Formats: sequence, structure tokens, C-alpha cells
Amino acid sequence: MKKLYLLTGLLPLAAAALLAAAPPATVLTKVRQYRQRHEHELLADYTRLLAIPNVAADTAGLRRTATTIAELMRQRGIGQVQLLPATTPGVAPAVYGEVRVPGAKRTIVFYAHYDGQPVNPAQWAPGLSPFRPTLASGSLASGGQLLPPLAPGTAISPDWRIYARGSSDDKAGVMAIISGYQALAQSGGRPTANLKFFFEGEEEAGSPHLAELLAKHRDLLKSDLWIICDGPVHQSGRKQVVFGARGDVNVALTVYGPKRPLHSGHYGNWAPNPAMSLARLLGSMKDSTGRVTIAGFYDDVIPLTATEQDALKRIPNIDDDIRRELGFARPDGAGQSLVELINQPSLNINGMRSANVGPQAANVIPTTADAVLDLRLVLGNDYQRQIAKVVRHIERQGFFVTRAEPTDAERARYPRLVRVSPATGYNAQRTAMDLPLARSVVQAVQTTVGQPVVLLPTSGGSLPLYVFKQELGATTLTVPVANYDNNQHAENENIRLGNLWDGMETMAALMTMK
Amino acid sequence: MKKLYLLTGLLPLAAAALLAAAPPATVLTKVRQYRQRHEHELLADYTRLLAIPNVAADTAGLRRTATTIAELMRQRGIGQVQLLPATTPGVAPAVYGEVRVPGAKRTIVFYAHYDGQPVNPAQWAPGLSPFRPTLASGSLASGGQLLPPLAPGTAISPDWRIYARGSSDDKAGVMAIISGYQALAQSGGRPTANLKFFFEGEEEAGSPHLAELLAKHRDLLKSDLWIICDGPVHQSGRKQVVFGARGDVNVALTVYGPKRPLHSGHYGNWAPNPAMSLARLLGSMKDSTGRVTIAGFYDDVIPLTATEQDALKRIPNIDDDIRRELGFARPDGAGQSLVELINQPSLNINGMRSANVGPQAANVIPTTADAVLDLRLVLGNDYQRQIAKVVRHIERQGFFVTRAEPTDAERARYPRLVRVSPATGYNAQRTAMDLPLARSVVQAVQTTVGQPVVLLPTSGGSLPLYVFKQELGATTLTVPVANYDNNQHAENENIRLGNLWDGMETMAALMTMK
Repeated sequence: MKKLYLLTGLLPLAAAALLAAAPPATVLTKVRQYRQRHEHELLADYTRLLAIPNVAADTAGLRRTATTIAELMRQRGIGQVQLLPATTPGVAPAVYGEVRVPGAKRTIVFYAHYDGQPVNPAQWAPGLSPFRPTLASGSLASGGQLLPPLAPGTAISPDWRIYARGSSDDKAGVMAIISGYQALAQSGGRPTANLKFFFEGEEEAGSPHLAELLAKHRDLLKSDLWIICDGPVHQSGRKQVVFGARGDVNVALTVYGPKRPLHSGHYGNWAPNPAMSLARLLGSMKDSTGRVTIAGFYDDVIPLTATEQDALKRIPNIDDDIRRELGFARPDGAGQSLVELINQPSLNINGMRSANVGPQAANVIPTTADAVLDLRLVLGNDYQRQIAKVVRHIERQGFFVTRAEPTDAERARYPRLVRVSPATGYNAQRTAMDLPLARSVVQAVQTTVGQPVVLLPTSGGSLPLYVFKQELGATTLTVPVANYDNNQHAENENIRLGNLWDGMETMAALMTMK
Repeated sequence: MKKLYLLTGLLPLAAAALLAAAPPATVLTKVRQYRQRHEHELLADYTRLLAIPNVAADTAGLRRTATTIAELMRQRGIGQVQLLPATTPGVAPAVYGEVRVPGAKRTIVFYAHYDGQPVNPAQWAPGLSPFRPTLASGSLASGGQLLPPLAPGTAISPDWRIYARGSSDDKAGVMAIISGYQALAQSGGRPTANLKFFFEGEEEAGSPHLAELLAKHRDLLKSDLWIICDGPVHQSGRKQVVFGARGDVNVALTVYGPKRPLHSGHYGNWAPNPAMSLARLLGSMKDSTGRVTIAGFYDDVIPLTATEQDALKRIPNIDDDIRRELGFARPDGAGQSLVELINQPSLNINGMRSANVGPQAANVIPTTADAVLDLRLVLGNDYQRQIAKVVRHIERQGFFVTRAEPTDAERARYPRLVRVSPATGYNAQRTAMDLPLARSVVQAVQTTVGQPVVLLPTSGGSLPLYVFKQELGATTLTVPVANYDNNQHAENENIRLGNLWDGMETMAALMTMK
């Protein structure tokens, strides 16, 4: 009966894992005890890492982040630590290391990324700054208060948070992996597989050189499995194993108005306003339920398998709870659930700007209006094809589309002018849910918690899993650690310390999995 | 025949002025010669004035601007110089002064404003800063180059520009008036009217305390005419007399999304995006020709008189030239001319913002999206009524409109939530074109130039003329001096020196008009 479930269902798979796993309780208990004894040191290491800027625009900061991670790895006894350069010069290197285990039959690469999303320090809460890691007694959004720097001997609550860019996404992944290994090794545990470590420095920039990096170091990176430690656990607080990720590509739009900003009185009604033009264009891309109206946008999608559809049904639906917490009355999607909707391609406005608002607003007709779109892709979508659909839609709204600053001749000829600047992107990827290695991973994660692990066919967020498959033929499974309310990608990013501690145990369990 | 023209037509009125004026050539020649001998000192005074910040948020800067103007006035021999406070404490005072002329039968108040629009220094061109006045050999937009600080004895070209906030709008008005008087008085000229000077400090903030100020100082400000020196000359380069101005009011909109910014992958397709919601809302306010689709928006408008309509026809149409220079292919307005369109109410997006674009853009669903609207009003419109039409339109798009930050209960109840924050505004005003005083003003301005003066029934830009009428019953006529390509209200604001010099002559001519 157990076997039957294993072959046909998903909740049963998790339930089976609950029953089947002979949890290496001693190992995990020792890992936990080690962490409890060393929380102050672990926090000091993490705070040091978080204080180093890790945004794409700051090459020196990224390099310093990489060398600091390498140093932390060496301190933890990880071997062969090195920075892996791409072929293209100037690219943030990956940080590599390994632990060879005599007699091991498997090799697992643990992946996280050390770069973070761009920051706008002005948008962070008072007292916070993206690269001055700050402790708080809980989520600031829910009444948590900032704490003074940690005094020696202070008891540390698992509900505390550290606020800093990258604290969740994804220096948390780096830290859970290397400190999970540290706790395991220092408490006498022994990995059951050869371990490799690969920490990327361009993930938030769309991993433009990852393929190149993987190809260049193909032999070094040979493995049976990549464990991707990135993203949040389920909103219910349950741990989750994620079998795939949406693809992603950004597209920047600039609509052009008059060459110089004009007095809105002397020219208002006559000179075309690019903000209005952009608003009309963006408004044409979705209907009132949030469904994308761009022709063919939902074509190409490869439907979920029966197993995957079944898995979706078994995921706890906490949509109403999150919606209430987030303070809005009606989600987009015409009644579909969050997990259904993240299995569809999406179009999001990341940001929009024309001239100024607030105290800097002036009575002008702006010269340009900008928006950045984020397109998420599911299996079957191709990011170039998805961009082409958007461009065709823009053209159908009467715009001349250029990839460069418009020339005077173009300005004179085309009443509607938009510059479209697509970034590098990548496609979606999914690993089959019934793969034996996948079962082992689920079982290992299940040993660390009592509640059933959530099994998610696809993460709404993106990871360059497609690139791993393409370049290395690699099997990837994602095991996230961060709290879901972490403000990742935005101001006030934070991690709940308990999630970091749990993450260490999860990683140690994966390093010792059957 | 002349008389007939004077009663019926506008170009004829200007032509008549050309013929009728016995130009006080000696006076104007002396004014010009005085200015030519003192250009360095005049520029030094002006640079000193421009270096003082004059934005609404900087109360100390505004006060320092006012006291500096008072000092410059005293140096020029103007009497009774004083700062006129409003009743409300903390309001930027008006600067007042007067010149009594024995036997004079008229009293004219010369008005300009010393405050400027808000600045965003980051948007200014390299080498420029809003309050570091900088000379250039011409318009930077047309190949002008920044010049080093002025060395003694250097010949000064009238085509040079000074770049600084307020250089055109409207410290130029202040400077043309007080230095016009200086040149007149120092070269032996004598005003034909009692002169009063009134320089406002809140015009760019919508003149919220002007009514209070005028009421408080009603006796001091008794006069036959207000000359408003603000705004640009005609785009053709011709001087103009403007008989009215549109009214104005700003409305800020904030659309609300989730309480905290969300990862656009994990929540994209499900959490409603306020930027998209704002785009759809703004897009609903105009059709593709730029005509406002808000119900009743063009109601209430009092049509132009036959004289005013006739005047419109006589204004040189340089729309195509400006359009080419500004680099766009098609104006809004479905074929109507610029001067026709500025005689209609308008709705302009001054600025729009949600999260970030450019290097700071991140993959998020933003929490809010903001826009600032600028509504211009013509005779017949009431600014409160115009706002009410906009609010009704927003409600018809399914929004719940609040004037405050939405409560949790409102967030839970209303799928579309917008905060609408109207600023203080004022209505439009027009002075009849056939008023005898108006004829005198046109004749006086005409004595300073060869080409016919342009007579504009209404300026597209706004001035609180309505408040002068309401509080004092005052007759107002606007005589601008700035070059039209001055970037007023925006980054890189500048004045062409020749316009400042011409403005001095215009003001001197008005002070000595028949």
C-alpha cells in the first residue's frame, strides 16, 4: 500500500516519507545542539557577510562578498575553496568548494547566490540601511522593534529578525549551507555524499553568464543532483521542496514625449504627455481581473502532469490568510488560487516613473515615462518568444518600437515612440516529482519536521534551473529556508533567525540523506 | 479708421499702437545705455539672488530670498521697502516697496514672484545645480557650452544664458522690474505713475495665502493696475501682452496594493499591482487624441468673446516650428492649434511613480502607485467643481476614494482603493481686451520693439489673477519677459540674458507710459 501511494500520489508521498524515514535523530540533535551553543558566533559571521554590499552595480562589493564567503568556507574546513571566473572578464565569480567523502556513491552540489536585488536606501524604514544589518524583536510590519547591537551572553530568540539586503535572498542560502555543514562536521556527523558548493554572484541580474560559467567548469561541477537553497518556505510556515521554477525576463520601456520638459500650463492640452501614453499602453496589457490581454500570451504553455495537478490540490490553501495580512480585498486571477496562478506565465509592472511625485512634483509635461516589466515563464514558454508577443502588442497600440534612443527622424515621423530594452532571461524548468532522488530529498527534509513537507511543482519565483539542465543535464531540486514575509527584492528585507537555524538543520539532513 | 480698428480688432490694435506711440526714445535709449554700462554689476546682483534656494519646502531660503530682494530694492532707491507678512504665521512674506511721483494720476503695482518650483538636483545636466547659477554660451539643448565664472571686462553676449531654478520663473520678473526702475531712475528718467512693487513668495505653491495677504494690506496696495511680470514671451520671440491666465489646481493620487512589497515571482498573477491599477485609471481619463473623457469636464466653460476669438486668429501660428524643435510628430488636440487648446481646461500628468525603474528596479509588486495631476481651468470653471468631476470619474472606475491613508477595514472591503489629495487652487481670470488701460499698456510695450506685440487673451500657464480681482477688484495685465525655451518648472531652467535686458526696457516703458 505504501508502494502504491509512492507511485501515485503526492500527499501520500510526503506521508510515506513521514513513516519511512528512519530519522538520523542523533545527527540532527547534535547539529541543533552545536548551533545552540554557537548562535552568537554564527550571527557575528552572518552580520559580517550582510554588511558587504552585493548589488550588481557594485563590482567591488560583489568581489568582497565572494572572498568573504570563501574565507568563511575555509574556516569551516571546506576544501578546494576557489573563486570560479567566467570567460567574460569583470563578471562576479562563483565561489566553489568541496568535501570529498570516501566511499560516497553520490555527489550533491549545494547552490545559493550571494548577490542581491538593487536597493533604494531612501525607501527603507527609519533606522534601517540595506548594508547595516540590524536586529529586530520581530517583523517590523507586525510590531517588531529594532534591537541594540547584540551584547555577549544575551539569549537569542528564534523570532528575531535581521534586516539587510540579501538577509533572506540569498545570503541566507549561503549561510544555511556552509553553517549546516559546519554544525554537522563539528558535531561528529559525516556526509553520505560528496559535497560541492557553488555560490553564484549574478542570479538577481538574470544569471547572464551562468551558462558560460557552467560550461567552463563542467568537469569540476559533475554531480548527481543540485540542491538549490533559495526562496521562502511555504506561507503556512511548513518546509517545502520545490520541483521547478518559473523562467524570467525583464523588459524596460521608455515612452518619449517632448525633448525638453514643458510648462504644463503653456503646453498642456497640446504637447503629448509620455506618462499618459505609457499609462494607456500598460493599461492595454491586462483586463480588470489581471488576465494578460496580449495576443498569444498564454499559448505554448505545457500543462501540468496529473501528478503535478494532484500535488497542487494537496497544498494547504492559505490564500485568504495571506490576502488579509497583505491588506487587499480581491486578488487578481478571477478566483483561481495562488498556486494555480504561479503555474501560469505572468506580466508584472516592477516599477513606473515619469518626472516626479510628492514634494518634488512640478507642473511639467515630462520628456519620458519609464516602466520595467517582469515576465515570468512556465514550461513551454520561451523568453524571446514571450518578449516578441509583448513587442507585437505594443506595435498594435500604434507605437513605433526602437531598441535605441530615438533619432530626430524617428521623432519627426512616429506619433508614438517607445524604446523596448529586454534584459537577458531564461526559461522555466521542472524536475519530475516521481524521480527516486526527489523522493530521497523529500524524505531527508521530512526528518527535520513533524508536519508534512509541502511539495510544490513550480516556484512562482525564478531560478536559472533551465541553465543547469541545458549546460550540465543536471537534476535540480529547490529546498528554501527563508520566512515567506521576508520582503525579498524590496526595502526592509529580513530573515527570521529561526528560519536560518532550521535551514542549517535541513541542509545537514540533505548532506546525510539516505 | 484707426479708431475703428481700435474698437474692433486685435492685430489692428497692435498696428495702431505701432503708429500711435510717440516712443519716448530718449528715455528708452538712456535706459539701454545705462544697462550696457552696468551689465557686470547687474549680473553680479542677479547671480547673488539666484544662489539663494527658493523652493516651498525651504522656509529659511525663501525668507533669505525676500530679505535679499528688499536689500536690492533699497540699493535702487525704492522707498518704503518692507516684508508684508500674512496673518497665518510661517508664510513666506511678500516684499513691498513704492516710488511716489508727485502729480501722478495713476498707481501701478508691479508684481512678480520670488519662489520657484521644487527641484530634483539629480535631474539637472552635468555641471549644473539648481542653486549654483551657471553661465552658458547658449541653450545647452542647442549646443550651448558652460562658461567659466565671468572675468571683469569680458564682453557679455545677449545670447548667453544663466542656468538656475527661478532664473526665468520668476526671479527674472523681480530683476527686470527693480533693475528696469534702477536704469530709468539712474539715467534721469521719471515715472509717469506712482509705482508699487509686490513680490510674492508662494506662487508656485498655488498662492494659498495670497488672498489673506491682499486683504490684510488692501489699503497699501490700492492701485489702478497690476502689471504681472511672469511667464515667457511668445515662441516667435515677439513680446506679448497677456490679458488673462488659466486657473490651476493639483491633485495627488495614491493607489494602494499589498501592504508590503511582494516578490513578483512568488505573487505575480495573484497580488494586485497598484501600478497597473493606476495605469488603467489614468488611461481612462483621456482618449487617444488627448481629449479628456471625464464626464462634464468641458462644461462650465465661458466662450471667448468675438474680440478674443479674433485675437487668437491674429497670433502667429508657429506650432509646427515648436513641434519640430521639441521632437514629436503629432500634438494632442485633434488638429486644434496651441492657442486654441490653452483656452480650454486641461488635465496633465505632472509625474507618476511606483517602486523603481532603471538600476534600482527590482522584481517586486509595489505597495503603492502615485501620480500628480495638474488641472488647468478657464473662465467659467471652478477648481472645486473640476476636482469633483475627477473624483466622480475615479469612483465610476470602481475605486473607493479616500482622503486619508486607508484603514485596515477599507483595505479589506474595497478591491480598488485610491487616496485623492487635492491641493489649494484658484480659478481663471481674463481682463477685457478693449479696456483703455490695456491699450496704454500695449502701446507702451510696443514702443520698445519694432515687430507687432502679440496679444494673448489667456496664458496657458496660471497666475493668481482671480485672487487679485476677488480681493482688490484689481485690473491685471501680464507682460512676460523670459525666453520661451527656458525649461521653467523643470530641470535646467535658464534665462537668455537678452530677454532680461529687454525686460528691463519693457518695465521702464511701462513705468513711463502715457
